[in-house]
Amino acid sequence: MKSFRDPVHNLIVFQNEDQVVIDLINTKEVQRLRRIRQLGLGNIAYPGAEHSRFVHSLGVAHLMRRFLDALREGHDQQMNDLQRDLQDYRTLALSSALLHDIGHGPFSHALESVTKVRHEQFTVGILRSPTTEVHQVLEGVQTGLSERVASVIERTFDPSRALVKLLSSQLDMDRVDYLLRDALMTGAGYGTFDVEWLLHAMRIGEVDGEPEVGLDLKKGQSIAEDYIMCRYYMYLHVYFHRTTRAAEVMVEKLLQRAREVQAFLPGFDALNALLKGRLQPTDEQSLSLYLQLDDGIIWTAMHLWSQHEDRILRDFSMRLLHRKIFQGIDVESEQQGFDLIQKMEQRAMAEGISPDYYVIDDTAASHAYHDPYITSAGSLSADAFTPVPQGASESIYLFDETGHPHELAESSFIVKAVRNRRVYARRVLFPEEWF
Amino acid sequence: MKSFRDPVHNLIVFQNEDQVVIDLINTKEVQRLRRIRQLGLGNIAYPGAEHSRFVHSLGVAHLMRRFLDALREGHDQQMNDLQRDLQDYRTLALSSALLHDIGHGPFSHALESVTKVRHEQFTVGILRSPTTEVHQVLEGVQTGLSERVASVIERTFDPSRALVKLLSSQLDMDRVDYLLRDALMTGAGYGTFDVEWLLHAMRIGEVDGEPEVGLDLKKGQSIAEDYIMCRYYMYLHVYFHRTTRAAEVMVEKLLQRAREVQAFLPGFDALNALLKGRLQPTDEQSLSLYLQLDDGIIWTAMHLWSQHEDRILRDFSMRLLHRKIFQGIDVESEQQGFDLIQKMEQRAMAEGISPDYYVIDDTAASHAYHDPYITSAGSLSADAFTPVPQGASESIYLFDETGHPHELAESSFIVKAVRNRRVYARRVLFPEEWF
Amino acid sequence: MKSFRDPVHNLIVFQNEDQVVIDLINTKEVQRLRRIRQLGLGNIAYPGAEHSRFVHSLGVAHLMRRFLDALREGHDQQMNDLQRDLQDYRTLALSSALLHDIGHGPFSHALESVTKVRHEQFTVGILRSPTTEVHQVLEGVQTGLSERVASVIERTFDPSRALVKLLSSQLDMDRVDYLLRDALMTGAGYGTFDVEWLLHAMRIGEVDGEPEVGLDLKKGQSIAEDYIMCRYYMYLHVYFHRTTRAAEVMVEKLLQRAREVQAFLPGFDALNALLKGRLQPTDEQSLSLYLQLDDGIIWTAMHLWSQHEDRILRDFSMRLLHRKIFQGIDVESEQQGFDLIQKMEQRAMAEGISPDYYVIDDTAASHAYHDPYITSAGSLSADAFTPVPQGASESIYLFDETGHPHELAESSFIVKAVRNRRVYARRVLFPEEWF
Amino acid sequence: MKSFRDPVHNLIVFQNEDQVVIDLINTKEVQRLRRIRQLGLGNIAYPGAEHSRFVHSLGVAHLMRRFLDALREGHDQQMNDLQRDLQDYRTLALSSALLHDIGHGPFSHALESVTKVRHEQFTVGILRSPTTEVHQVLEGVQTGLSERVASVIERTFDPSRALVKLLSSQLDMDRVDYLLRDALMTGAGYGTFDVEWLLHAMRIGEVDGEPEVGLDLKKGQSIAEDYIMCRYYMYLHVYFHRTTRAAEVMVEKLLQRAREVQAFLPGFDALNALLKGRLQPTDEQSLSLYLQLDDGIIWTAMHLWSQHEDRILRDFSMRLLHRKIFQGIDVESEQQGFDLIQKMEQRAMAEGISPDYYVIDDTAASHAYHDPYITSAGSLSADAFTPVPQGASESIYLFDETGHPHELAESSFIVKAVRNRRVYARRVLFPEEWF
Repeated sequence: MKSFRDPVHNLIVFQNEDQVVIDLINTKEVQRLRRIRQLGLGNIAYPGAEHSRFVHSLGVAHLMRRFLDALREGHDQQMNDLQRDLQDYRTLALSSALLHDIGHGPFSHALESVTKVRHEQFTVGILRSPTTEVHQVLEGVQTGLSERVASVIERTFDPSRALVKLLSSQLDMDRVDYLLRDALMTGAGYGTFDVEWLLHAMRIGEVDGEPEVGLDLKKGQSIAEDYIMCRYYMYLHVYFHRTTRAAEVMVEKLLQRAREVQAFLPGFDALNALLKGRLQPTDEQSLSLYLQLDDGIIWTAMHLWSQHEDRILRDFSMRLLHRKIFQGIDVESEQQGFDLIQKMEQRAMAEGISPDYYVIDDTAASHAYHDPYITSAGSLSADAFTPVPQGASESIYLFDETGHPHELAESSFIVKAVRNRRVYARRVLFPEEWF
Repeated sequence: MKSFRDPVHNLIVFQNEDQVVIDLINTKEVQRLRRIRQLGLGNIAYPGAEHSRFVHSLGVAHLMRRFLDALREGHDQQMNDLQRDLQDYRTLALSSALLHDIGHGPFSHALESVTKVRHEQFTVGILRSPTTEVHQVLEGVQTGLSERVASVIERTFDPSRALVKLLSSQLDMDRVDYLLRDALMTGAGYGTFDVEWLLHAMRIGEVDGEPEVGLDLKKGQSIAEDYIMCRYYMYLHVYFHRTTRAAEVMVEKLLQRAREVQAFLPGFDALNALLKGRLQPTDEQSLSLYLQLDDGIIWTAMHLWSQHEDRILRDFSMRLLHRKIFQGIDVESEQQGFDLIQKMEQRAMAEGISPDYYVIDDTAASHAYHDPYITSAGSLSADAFTPVPQGASESIYLFDETGHPHELAESSFIVKAVRNRRVYARRVLFPEEWF
Repeated sequence: MKSFRDPVHNLIVFQNEDQVVIDLINTKEVQRLRRIRQLGLGNIAYPGAEHSRFVHSLGVAHLMRRFLDALREGHDQQMNDLQRDLQDYRTLALSSALLHDIGHGPFSHALESVTKVRHEQFTVGILRSPTTEVHQVLEGVQTGLSERVASVIERTFDPSRALVKLLSSQLDMDRVDYLLRDALMTGAGYGTFDVEWLLHAMRIGEVDGEPEVGLDLKKGQSIAEDYIMCRYYMYLHVYFHRTTRAAEVMVEKLLQRAREVQAFLPGFDALNALLKGRLQPTDEQSLSLYLQLDDGIIWTAMHLWSQHEDRILRDFSMRLLHRKIFQGIDVESEQQGFDLIQKMEQRAMAEGISPDYYVIDDTAASHAYHDPYITSAGSLSADAFTPVPQGASESIYLFDETGHPHELAESSFIVKAVRNRRVYARRVLFPEEWF
Repeated sequence: MKSFRDPVHNLIVFQNEDQVVIDLINTKEVQRLRRIRQLGLGNIAYPGAEHSRFVHSLGVAHLMRRFLDALREGHDQQMNDLQRDLQDYRTLALSSALLHDIGHGPFSHALESVTKVRHEQFTVGILRSPTTEVHQVLEGVQTGLSERVASVIERTFDPSRALVKLLSSQLDMDRVDYLLRDALMTGAGYGTFDVEWLLHAMRIGEVDGEPEVGLDLKKGQSIAEDYIMCRYYMYLHVYFHRTTRAAEVMVEKLLQRAREVQAFLPGFDALNALLKGRLQPTDEQSLSLYLQLDDGIIWTAMHLWSQHEDRILRDFSMRLLHRKIFQGIDVESEQQGFDLIQKMEQRAMAEGISPDYYVIDDTAASHAYHDPYITSAGSLSADAFTPVPQGASESIYLFDETGHPHELAESSFIVKAVRNRRVYARRVLFPEEWF
């Protein structure tokens, strides 16, 4: 038995029956997540938001355990097939919950723009690689378990679709933990919901023959609305925060520039491989290097690059280290955006610096994920950090007493309003001193 | 006006009258604190405790502002000289509160064992150095302000002894913030006290002609006890946690070894200067290098050292990165300690490795601070992280209606009990696999 | 100076400058509110919701004080005329806040259906009556103060319209306290919002030449939405709770019956006067009797009436004492409602009991208040307990940097959605055993 | 299944397997507890403390269920005999937890001084009486269950001593709930402890062949200390609060006077029987009357008595209704107490009023309960409200890995200090206007 204290969930306990979780926590791949902040540069705007992907991963495993235990204890309703099914996959469910983020690199978003590989691919690469400790622990428990965890994370695990949904859908344990945790750590007061009631109201049901994670119709509607509103506010105020977005884009530009000028650093094998474009999730050597990357390496590189001969690399490094973040001006019309960009580009050229780096047209909509509750189609990424893989369930269902599903936006005028809302977050970014 | 959200204090606001705080926050020396965790390796035992010295510093400035505002608003009691005095030094008080930790390096404790310089000396060095941004901001407000801040931090500022005590005594804003913050972030449920009531009960009084920060006798005794108990529990469970202590000692050993084998890293100017023993708080060049140090650099060095030719350096680096922390066994008698050390040293020699590094006799009492509320004389450091400079007020006073002071341990049998308590935290540390 | 502890606001302090508040708290008219529960029978559905109108009144006075202090301390923005104006009326503002509910009787709603007098009329009657302690305290402070407090509560105080709005509008201190308090006490997790941020974002502005209490446009939109959502949920789940509504209607019927059968009780002068229809807010004698009414008297009457010769009175008394509350069935169509009522009436007649008492067509829309944020016109009362007097400001405004007001529902698609929502709460109530 | 929201425990759920709890909640004897405040007149000093014995009883049943579920789920340690034993008595345990307070009257303390019967005797009387609903529900579940519940409450149930201890010992579910609840409702910030950790650390062990409820030695010591400190503070600041104590003594005097002058009220059968000394826990008729008593009846009696011909009864009634509570002066020496009493008695006689009623020598130590953690022998009642029956376990034990018990005060210097502390709360009470 192993217990942790946690600011979000208070007490996190894994009993001996879940020893696999304890063993996985002790692997170096999971320990690495201690050195990667969940919100990347989110703490630039919300100074308390300094928590790591490690503590988030613990939280997701904890919520998964609570949900499975609640199913087991719910003596009232006959346990149905879907629930029994989930119980059978307890070890798989807990392992997947704990490991769902092990492929994240530092400043995930910016890194992906350089690797051109989504972090999920690294996650499954790490799970499948026979040299990783997580692979070894999983195989030690059950032959083939690492592959099954990979398929849950890839959303292709067919024996229990409910399990897949529990980890990745509109209402999954990953989101529940990160929303609660990000809300607490940022101190953003509107971003909370009652997780006790949410767990109390959660149900496994069926929609068009496919298992879905949903909520009890009577108990769940208001908490579902509250949860959706929480997500909405977290995007509005935290994830798309002007300064945080600007800082993230600056890291992206920094890494692009480092790649462009091939700014290798002696001894930084992982970073150098990254800059050479050699980090691939299917290659053992690559994975081993990738697993060395963490926030500290990128920050240290900035320290070293702040004396690099390339002026742009030097300048971006120092700006990020000293929090001289670009100013972001909202683009409110095509014309105003066009004019502003043109004006700033002329300014850049007048100062003899490259507009490619110093005048940035940032649309938060640059990612492909479509989330019907947050955005209208095509307008905007709903999740700046974790683009959800294809096929994620795009709806939340409320199940009535007969088990019949009701799509949330159909029953809730509030969710309907949020769904139809177009969110724009296009901004022109440029050095603060030009403002 | 500038506002921050914070998990501890919710809303932190600095109005325009306190513009200096906003300007100081934007300096690179203060921004550096974002990259240094308040509890060093505290998150090894409490995964949520990942907060930085930056957010703590904001919290201390916030508490100082609240206290000063409360004095101003307390229309009831005639504002006495001591209070008026504090109001006059508002800018100084807020600046000192925000800046009190800027001299901290990464893993403060371990670093000091290598630099042989206390972090406070770097703090005052940074304040006095004309090249730092904080110095420039302070002098821009008022000539000589940087020196006055330095003297508050050195506890030598005579015009207002109350101000000195507010920042550094048994009951100061620094402690109040870090206890609350560490308690929240660790999730350690016993470590809380009611900060609203504490601020409500705080008083500036006089003891033997010297101003002291204390509490109202009637309102303050229970909250003072609660605060002392909170400190006691935080030491017992968090600051002296077996695994955290072991990890800290391992970082100390790592840096010692790196120094011994002169394990310089190309481009790591600050770290190399550290290993060469060249970081001095009075030297401009040194200070500039020192200000580059942060947690990320040390972690990155471990990545690089994990391929170093020195076996010990390599091994310690990997153990720390992958959280293979030494086991700690309590020493319960001289004899048992002696036997255990001897046994482990033989084991080390049998394996051909150095007992100097692999068998460690760790007494948490290695620091000089005497805190009458926590320890009996000479037994043990009360504060593993922030050794308080000489002359810190060693008592908390309760002031009655006439202003007469009552020493807390005299009025409180609980504090008396805590004071007389000897705390031992001597442990023998060695590789976990020998256990 | 006087301080209170409070589960909602933690520490409530009134300094000597606000001595009037302390003196008013000690009057018997304010002390009476300790014996009247804020939510009447709300604890029937939410067992923790047992708080009194007394502690709510303290909370409103506390919030008012905080708001006034915040205005005074906001040195940043020039204090404008509207703000200066409010400061001038500090004593009036605090007194009005504390006293706004003194005219409430027990089970306010039900009582008003018998007295045919709104509780506000008793409030102003009590203020104006020279025999009450509150009148005497107010006049002792300032001649005419009691009249001014009355006019604030009647919303006719012209010298400071802002003050009137602070106590009674869409965003007033009364609502802020009761929403927070009811949410905490019921334990209803969705009913919370961040009061610190709300106070931080509140502004006094001008709309069409009339002062209005509103919010800063940039800071206030999300918190305003959160506040509106909180109200929405509290109505949905707490104030219109099926069982609570049924119990309230039963008390109404009980009192009607007692009046019908003139069920006087020896010594119960106040209750007997009520049953005789003699309680008038303008009559000294009446007021004095009215001020004896409290929850305990009604409950005790039920004890006595449970042995009354009238079968209906006896039955309703026992049902309420033993929580045998009527079942409530939602009316989903005119036809279904008609059928259900007919069926139940036949049942009643078959059992030889009066359908007038045992089959109740309860529409929560029976009150006149139109709240654009909660209901569409004419559909439903938004506030089952405190019908807001005519002329209450019906909008919340967000003020931009130039002071220009933006109506909340215009800027917020969420509030717009809530506003256009029709809420039905029509139910047929009848004895549970018929279900 | 039935769920409740609660400000203390958030969500309280009883599944169908515990249907008996739901049925018992619906009895009129349990419903009566809604009309009796847990802290009697505690809200006089802490205005938020208005919660009833009903919601407390729900909380105790909830904690009992959580503890039993935790035992069942603790798959790690083999479930031992003591635990299996407790599981067997699940229905009994939950029923006893819910019903432990049904014998409480209004203002329990004061009432007992008139009835000369402890409330526990009424509790068991009610359980045994075939006419009560609780008796009938219990017997409906299992013949003899009502008697078994009675014996648990009388502490004579031998088949499971652990069950008895869980409900009544130094560390029982009753205390855990009331301390948490009273702390939350009063807003008294020092009175909290981490109930999650407490439940996590609780163990059933054996001491001298007798089952005891205790804590894990490693995990439990600090939380045990915190719990003991919480109790200490709640006594110091809440339960023995000067004004609350004075008000309670005044109610006692009021009832004594009413008895003395035989101030019967028409229709108040229960109260009149009380004044006649006819309420006996073993008499059906008596019980039925006793079960009509609630706070409202006493308050209503005061309204009526405030016009009684007896001057003392009239005066006490009005003082209590309007919160003109007697002043309490601490007796710091025999001589000072003697002098003060003499002075006040002369004052009373000069005013022609009875010193027996107007000058009260109140020692909070008047009850027999000896609690080694709070008081030294003979000094003072530790529990002004619930004198614990003889034979209550007087110690808390910490169980080590081998199951060996360590008495808490032996391992904890803090508890030792609290235990040896003498607490005096002797005060002279008299009308405030004489002060």
